[in-house]
Amino acid sequence: MTSTKTEYIACLIVIGNEILSGRTRDANLQYLAGRLNGWGVQLREARVIPDIEQTIVDTVNHCRQAFDYVFTTGGIGPTHDDITAASVAKAFGVGLVKDPKSFALMAARYETPEEFNESRRKMCFIPEGAVPVENSVSVAPGFQIDNVFVLAGVPSIMRAMVDTLQNRLVGGAPVKSRSIGCHLPEGAVAGGLADIQGRWPDIDIGSYPFYREGKFGTSLVLRGTDEAALDATCSAVEAMVIRLGGVPMPEED
Amino acid sequence: MTSTKTEYIACLIVIGNEILSGRTRDANLQYLAGRLNGWGVQLREARVIPDIEQTIVDTVNHCRQAFDYVFTTGGIGPTHDDITAASVAKAFGVGLVKDPKSFALMAARYETPEEFNESRRKMCFIPEGAVPVENSVSVAPGFQIDNVFVLAGVPSIMRAMVDTLQNRLVGGAPVKSRSIGCHLPEGAVAGGLADIQGRWPDIDIGSYPFYREGKFGTSLVLRGTDEAALDATCSAVEAMVIRLGGVPMPEED
Repeated sequence: MTSTKTEYIACLIVIGNEILSGRTRDANLQYLAGRLNGWGVQLREARVIPDIEQTIVDTVNHCRQAFDYVFTTGGIGPTHDDITAASVAKAFGVGLVKDPKSFALMAARYETPEEFNESRRKMCFIPEGAVPVENSVSVAPGFQIDNVFVLAGVPSIMRAMVDTLQNRLVGGAPVKSRSIGCHLPEGAVAGGLADIQGRWPDIDIGSYPFYREGKFGTSLVLRGTDEAALDATCSAVEAMVIRLGGVPMPEED
Repeated sequence: MTSTKTEYIACLIVIGNEILSGRTRDANLQYLAGRLNGWGVQLREARVIPDIEQTIVDTVNHCRQAFDYVFTTGGIGPTHDDITAASVAKAFGVGLVKDPKSFALMAARYETPEEFNESRRKMCFIPEGAVPVENSVSVAPGFQIDNVFVLAGVPSIMRAMVDTLQNRLVGGAPVKSRSIGCHLPEGAVAGGLADIQGRWPDIDIGSYPFYREGKFGTSLVLRGTDEAALDATCSAVEAMVIRLGGVPMPEED
């Protein structure tokens, strides 16, 4: 089977009242985005939603139709506010079933029935038809059901889970980027930059003001899958910076 | 006119390819959420979307119906990728008009026509019927149109804009919170916590594992508008922690 599909897009659903209340600052979007870039999948949208079952069901059902891949983070722990697995099962219209491997691992870790209590047992239940997503940090699994990947919210566990997924994702060409800094204000480069964007429409050109070491400036970031087009755009941006009296400085992407 | 409405909900739309590519980590959600908490408005959802006109139009039009207030950040600078003002105007079916005050301020700052170029002039145009949102950091304004507040993406400017908005927002009772830490794992407190949540359904109880100073533990966060109920729930949580052999530690909310 061959496919002419070249663009693969993903959505991240961050589940957790603690993000929306401002208590906790999300740390997972950035990590996932970077990994997906390397695998040729573009993170096209992210949503932060509360621990409300109907909201999770509706959001998952909308996003799994609209995107090639959906990732969720948060809500798979043992407490009453961890309702992601049950909500995703409901979104797919299936029940929760015990994952025997996780159950055995956890049963070995917690010796007494008091320790291996109902709350901890809950973490071994995944939707019918789902495949566990294991990780090197915790015995409790995430899971994949169809194109939806349900991951932990704790960043160290989330990252370990993401790192196992490369072989489960089909992507396109990896997105490469170049970044050029200069001590010119955005308002000075805007006109020339628009011209360059017009000449290379397949390169995504972003402009971001910065204040570093006591100086204002602008970072010009070029992103795309075609290395030759990236190089040509990069040269044009550097020439523009020099023409405007600035000094182009290569930056980390 | 009186209103029986007690809950006011908001959505944040973060606009910017640089967030979705992982280049930049959003810093605005947390600030907005904290301010809104104090004004009795709950941030109920956030969406991160790319610099694509139709996506901005559709997202703004969906969210302004679904939430009392919508805030956007990003995309109001001078460059070609700054398309938020034009997209929001399109969402409302209106044109862009010059804001005379911003135009005069900016004209005074940039003396020559070369400096006060087309790209910078663009920043003084806001949708017809919108009211500018000024700030103490930059002469370029954000704006409010109906229940949509369009703010800068640069955190220092975004914060200065948010700080001017208190008098434009009607809110309910401010949400208060209490946080109790303990060196017990989530799996140990889960059962007792679910019982407490059942007794005080109007208090939102969250449980978050932590690793600090070489020790694992759990933060139990209680949120609600009723101080007496918060105090009662807090006492119940502290008693549970002691019953399980832990030491309840008050934490910063």
